[in-house]
Amino acid sequence: MRAVVYKGPFNVAVEQVENPKIQHPNDVIVHITSSAICGSDLHMYEGRTAAQPGIIFGHENMGLVEEVGPGVVSLHKGDRVVMPFNVACGFCKNCIRGYTGFCLTVNPGFAGGAYGYVAMGPYPGGQAEYLRVPFADFNALKLPPGKEHEEDFALLADIFPTGYHGTELAEVSIGESVVVFGAGPVGAMAAYSALLRGAGDVYVVDRVPERLQKAKDIGAIPIDFSKGDPVQQIRDMRHGDGVDKGVDAVGYQAVAQGKEAPSTVLDALIMIVNPTGQLGIPGLYVPSDPGGVDPHAKEGRLLIPFGKLFEKGLRLGTGQCNVKKYNAYLRDMIIAGRAKPSFIVSNEVSLDQAPMAYEKFDKRIEGYTKVILKP
Amino acid sequence: MRAVVYKGPFNVAVEQVENPKIQHPNDVIVHITSSAICGSDLHMYEGRTAAQPGIIFGHENMGLVEEVGPGVVSLHKGDRVVMPFNVACGFCKNCIRGYTGFCLTVNPGFAGGAYGYVAMGPYPGGQAEYLRVPFADFNALKLPPGKEHEEDFALLADIFPTGYHGTELAEVSIGESVVVFGAGPVGAMAAYSALLRGAGDVYVVDRVPERLQKAKDIGAIPIDFSKGDPVQQIRDMRHGDGVDKGVDAVGYQAVAQGKEAPSTVLDALIMIVNPTGQLGIPGLYVPSDPGGVDPHAKEGRLLIPFGKLFEKGLRLGTGQCNVKKYNAYLRDMIIAGRAKPSFIVSNEVSLDQAPMAYEKFDKRIEGYTKVILKP
Amino acid sequence: MRAVVYKGPFNVAVEQVENPKIQHPNDVIVHITSSAICGSDLHMYEGRTAAQPGIIFGHENMGLVEEVGPGVVSLHKGDRVVMPFNVACGFCKNCIRGYTGFCLTVNPGFAGGAYGYVAMGPYPGGQAEYLRVPFADFNALKLPPGKEHEEDFALLADIFPTGYHGTELAEVSIGESVVVFGAGPVGAMAAYSALLRGAGDVYVVDRVPERLQKAKDIGAIPIDFSKGDPVQQIRDMRHGDGVDKGVDAVGYQAVAQGKEAPSTVLDALIMIVNPTGQLGIPGLYVPSDPGGVDPHAKEGRLLIPFGKLFEKGLRLGTGQCNVKKYNAYLRDMIIAGRAKPSFIVSNEVSLDQAPMAYEKFDKRIEGYTKVILKP
Amino acid sequence: MRAVVYKGPFNVAVEQVENPKIQHPNDVIVHITSSAICGSDLHMYEGRTAAQPGIIFGHENMGLVEEVGPGVVSLHKGDRVVMPFNVACGFCKNCIRGYTGFCLTVNPGFAGGAYGYVAMGPYPGGQAEYLRVPFADFNALKLPPGKEHEEDFALLADIFPTGYHGTELAEVSIGESVVVFGAGPVGAMAAYSALLRGAGDVYVVDRVPERLQKAKDIGAIPIDFSKGDPVQQIRDMRHGDGVDKGVDAVGYQAVAQGKEAPSTVLDALIMIVNPTGQLGIPGLYVPSDPGGVDPHAKEGRLLIPFGKLFEKGLRLGTGQCNVKKYNAYLRDMIIAGRAKPSFIVSNEVSLDQAPMAYEKFDKRIEGYTKVILKP
Repeated sequence: MRAVVYKGPFNVAVEQVENPKIQHPNDVIVHITSSAICGSDLHMYEGRTAAQPGIIFGHENMGLVEEVGPGVVSLHKGDRVVMPFNVACGFCKNCIRGYTGFCLTVNPGFAGGAYGYVAMGPYPGGQAEYLRVPFADFNALKLPPGKEHEEDFALLADIFPTGYHGTELAEVSIGESVVVFGAGPVGAMAAYSALLRGAGDVYVVDRVPERLQKAKDIGAIPIDFSKGDPVQQIRDMRHGDGVDKGVDAVGYQAVAQGKEAPSTVLDALIMIVNPTGQLGIPGLYVPSDPGGVDPHAKEGRLLIPFGKLFEKGLRLGTGQCNVKKYNAYLRDMIIAGRAKPSFIVSNEVSLDQAPMAYEKFDKRIEGYTKVILKP
Repeated sequence: MRAVVYKGPFNVAVEQVENPKIQHPNDVIVHITSSAICGSDLHMYEGRTAAQPGIIFGHENMGLVEEVGPGVVSLHKGDRVVMPFNVACGFCKNCIRGYTGFCLTVNPGFAGGAYGYVAMGPYPGGQAEYLRVPFADFNALKLPPGKEHEEDFALLADIFPTGYHGTELAEVSIGESVVVFGAGPVGAMAAYSALLRGAGDVYVVDRVPERLQKAKDIGAIPIDFSKGDPVQQIRDMRHGDGVDKGVDAVGYQAVAQGKEAPSTVLDALIMIVNPTGQLGIPGLYVPSDPGGVDPHAKEGRLLIPFGKLFEKGLRLGTGQCNVKKYNAYLRDMIIAGRAKPSFIVSNEVSLDQAPMAYEKFDKRIEGYTKVILKP
Repeated sequence: MRAVVYKGPFNVAVEQVENPKIQHPNDVIVHITSSAICGSDLHMYEGRTAAQPGIIFGHENMGLVEEVGPGVVSLHKGDRVVMPFNVACGFCKNCIRGYTGFCLTVNPGFAGGAYGYVAMGPYPGGQAEYLRVPFADFNALKLPPGKEHEEDFALLADIFPTGYHGTELAEVSIGESVVVFGAGPVGAMAAYSALLRGAGDVYVVDRVPERLQKAKDIGAIPIDFSKGDPVQQIRDMRHGDGVDKGVDAVGYQAVAQGKEAPSTVLDALIMIVNPTGQLGIPGLYVPSDPGGVDPHAKEGRLLIPFGKLFEKGLRLGTGQCNVKKYNAYLRDMIIAGRAKPSFIVSNEVSLDQAPMAYEKFDKRIEGYTKVILKP
Repeated sequence: MRAVVYKGPFNVAVEQVENPKIQHPNDVIVHITSSAICGSDLHMYEGRTAAQPGIIFGHENMGLVEEVGPGVVSLHKGDRVVMPFNVACGFCKNCIRGYTGFCLTVNPGFAGGAYGYVAMGPYPGGQAEYLRVPFADFNALKLPPGKEHEEDFALLADIFPTGYHGTELAEVSIGESVVVFGAGPVGAMAAYSALLRGAGDVYVVDRVPERLQKAKDIGAIPIDFSKGDPVQQIRDMRHGDGVDKGVDAVGYQAVAQGKEAPSTVLDALIMIVNPTGQLGIPGLYVPSDPGGVDPHAKEGRLLIPFGKLFEKGLRLGTGQCNVKKYNAYLRDMIIAGRAKPSFIVSNEVSLDQAPMAYEKFDKRIEGYTKVILKP
């Protein structure tokens, strides 16, 4: 089959590889119909990880069940499914508590596995024609048959739940004021989720005009940080007040004054969120970053205004999204016509065009903000 | 001043009464600008309670602070405020946990007090020109100055929070399917709240066409129980499935096949809500109902399918709304333009027209479904 | 192998039956070392259910893994395990939310399955030499090797988690006053759990002196309901006050004044629990009880003081225990030396003595309050 | 009256000062019977804050109501009361949600007030004969009359709730493994609280033998960090595993290898707590510390292994304790005989001996680990 293979920094190719096979009674093979490119794929693409050439990319996967292992009881050939980017067993100490992003079974020696990602276990990605899904009863979410909502459902693999996760970590509730840093796909989904949950004023901080416009379109208040300190801008709009909750949808590659400044978003959140508030941090921070801006950053150590955090009595939650905790509910919102996250999708391209799509996405070229590959 | 005084069954009059006075350092006097008539006022109006003539009605009160007791620190003359229908002290065991509907201080011997209501303590109602508000720092919610959102804010005294309370007792969450029994003001607010919180499919059961239409207008799915068993109608629409959560916005005066049947809504909820589900019951049930349909109902004892409830592992929450737990958040949603509950207000009339308004509301005459009195 | 087989009302026999076999890749076969007799077995034993002769009893099962299906990944021959009485799949809508007592997969057409129980699916019980455990990675809880804590661990299959479940449904928290109705094995475990969670005063209501003594021994306050109305006794001890929370560990076969009175415990709980309180109801109520005291009881319909429940704003939770939600934590308390639930075990007998043990347990003969069978 | 007055670094004196007076209708004056010296008093005593001479120290106050303002409704002369160290209004946005440590009313421009503490508002402390208590209905917790449990109750003002707060921020639950850094009064109370809540293994890290012994006495596992890396010691005891939850009861004056190292405890917690775990941080961190070890520390900025924190998906909660959220429950545990926190009290001395007691406590002289002053 054809698959998107990592060849080295800034280089992916569509190559012929072996088809995946059922390896365990609980596996299924899925024929991929949609597989999105994720911002976190760019960390590998840019050579900013330990990823070695040969990895098949793709952790936002959706398709039709093609083959079913003898231990699988709830899936049948032809079922339309979307998979969380996390691979999870369903029965370990973490999975049974809903922490499927931190499965203790699927990636021995580490808490958490994923498809097509460096250090996340032996699971080839789904930017390919076929994908092996382990523990399939647990990992595949069934969708209504047909072709409706294809783009919306594809986003259930990662960014819609991940954005939602940010609001869950911050425990965003009705009427609360919220700031979301970052208006990329995850930030947009976080702002959208905050609004779906009933937040009051939702501020979204970015500097890319088309992203800020999308935030405005869904009912959020755009804050352009290239126009001045976002903390001050928000305080001014709120007559000096801060906000109840904050979400960091940026992570360690944050930029301030044109330079990478890995703690700048955390800093701003701690300043703008009111005492007793809460921070949800789905934006990625890593314990080892060879390309970090200084020796501390290379080890994932950041200088945080912890005294201020404490004085305000803030709480914070971090970590990759446990997709399975939310995906069925978000699916049901889509089916009920109450959510339509696909507003964030910029375009669809064929699998063969993946190298071009990666390049344009990486260069932040307009029109390539969220690309879905169609194998 | 003038006030709406209960004279006996089906009889209220606008009479001249003494102005309220500051009785305690923490009191304020509020000049009423809006005071709504509530469905629960009808229980007294119809003579279906122990209410004695002389009570000044009105527990949905809003206005401007007129006079401030010497112990009050956060309110000033001219402040625009809305009061929860509950009178609460703010410091007893129940108030400090947010259960302001069950205050142990304001109505000795009973948990909970209210304005203008039988057995709820010595607090004249606000269907009048002025109202005394005890423990005013705690009981008055400040509103933005001016006249904007007057009708929306007036609903913060009772029915918007009460409807919301139903969804909170049922812990309605994102993507969940919900049924609300009753599309009167509280039921409409419950359905609206469920949608604001991110529910998926929300079914609303009633038989009054204009109520069902309003439910449909806000995005809920109307179920006309005069057209057939609502449990079956919902199951049919859901291909046999039930719903995740349910709200009873009807209470003990429920009707089935044209007759009062006090447990009919509870019965239906237990049948339609899925195993592991949850029921929120803001609809009123009383421990003593002289007009009850049978000796058990007179004592508030109802025949409940408890075996089925248990088999399904259902949970339920009951009781009058702790308005203060929600009102500031709901106010902020209104200010942020994210909620507009006043769609439920049918009309405003002057205080002098109260007798007419009570009569028409009691007879369910169209156009008098939710009346606000303007003193 | 030998197994305890139901022959008809008041009649069980130890018979030779076929050994269980691996039927699905995710099964394991467990060699039973301990299998307790449960109070709920008596419902079948007494002929008070639809159970047909031929059922192998036993849902409190513990033993050593004997054989492992090819899909199982976390268990190996020789592992010491205890199984929740519920059979659950681990991946359905209910299991992934922790409601393993309401699994939608294992007992088609019903929410929930169990070993050796009428209407709970095709799962023979474990009062036998061997037991087939489906979805074994999910259903078997690993224990430390060896023989230590055998009796404590055996109680993890049902009654320790079930008692704990009562306190969880009531959300018992630190310093709260709690009443537990029933001091049989489940009631004792509920009181014990309340104390382990940090409750303040814990009252236990029963009439059997040895049960009340055990309650006292663990630090609870015994209330003998044969000496007078338990509600009044507790109020008197508390200077008129009620309690914060209540647990019903009795269920529908409750007795008042020497006669079965299925709602008597619910009644008492509603009277004694304070406004804003919460009831946990792990005691069994059934939707169909051919032996019920009246036509309503036969259909599981009970007359409940619902008006009083509402007036007090009480919440309640019901249903069989989701054992898997608690069993690993309770196991860890046992290992840490912080819990020792085996104080409730009266004796151990060989499998062959099961008929005698059933008879004595059913007759409430002293010394047979909680029997563990040793195959 | 006599009071303990701060004169400058390492210098307090017992001086004659004016008696406090009722200043507002909601005030009471309390005749102090017990007022403890707190570890946080030492920050001021050591000159490590902006405290100016003249402050009356004392925020752990207990006594008898002496005089009652005309707005107070629940207190009477002679009532025995203990006051949270926080001064709170009871009606602001933060107080009504239980965040009484972050009251927006009592200390304008800052969230939170306290007695006898620099920058915490105009509230003289209670290491004196009399104390003015504002918003007394809200701030005074009533105790049973008499002299019983005097030392236990005195600890309800601060350290028992503060230790408990650490376990609440970490959401310590039944059977969980917990590490508490610091075995001073707050750390001991945190470990004690974890055990009262039903934790499994509780590790306590310190280097002072008598503190470690006390931890052992209550059932915790002592870890002496002077004997080797505590993270490694715990892993070794747990066969390589970490723990579920962690509490930082040390704060910014943490010491490593004999030198102040303000992030050393946070570092260790992030290393030893398992993925999906949670940190409760009641130990004090400040946004401005003139005596800090480096320029960053002086501004309360700490270098944190944030990448590792994120990778593990940890959550954390910080901030001073909202005493009122817990004090009534902890009082009830004391009354019920279920908690006896006074094991931590080292001795009682008369008010006149305060200067000596401060000196010995500051020098960590044995026998002066937790001193109660008796005016």
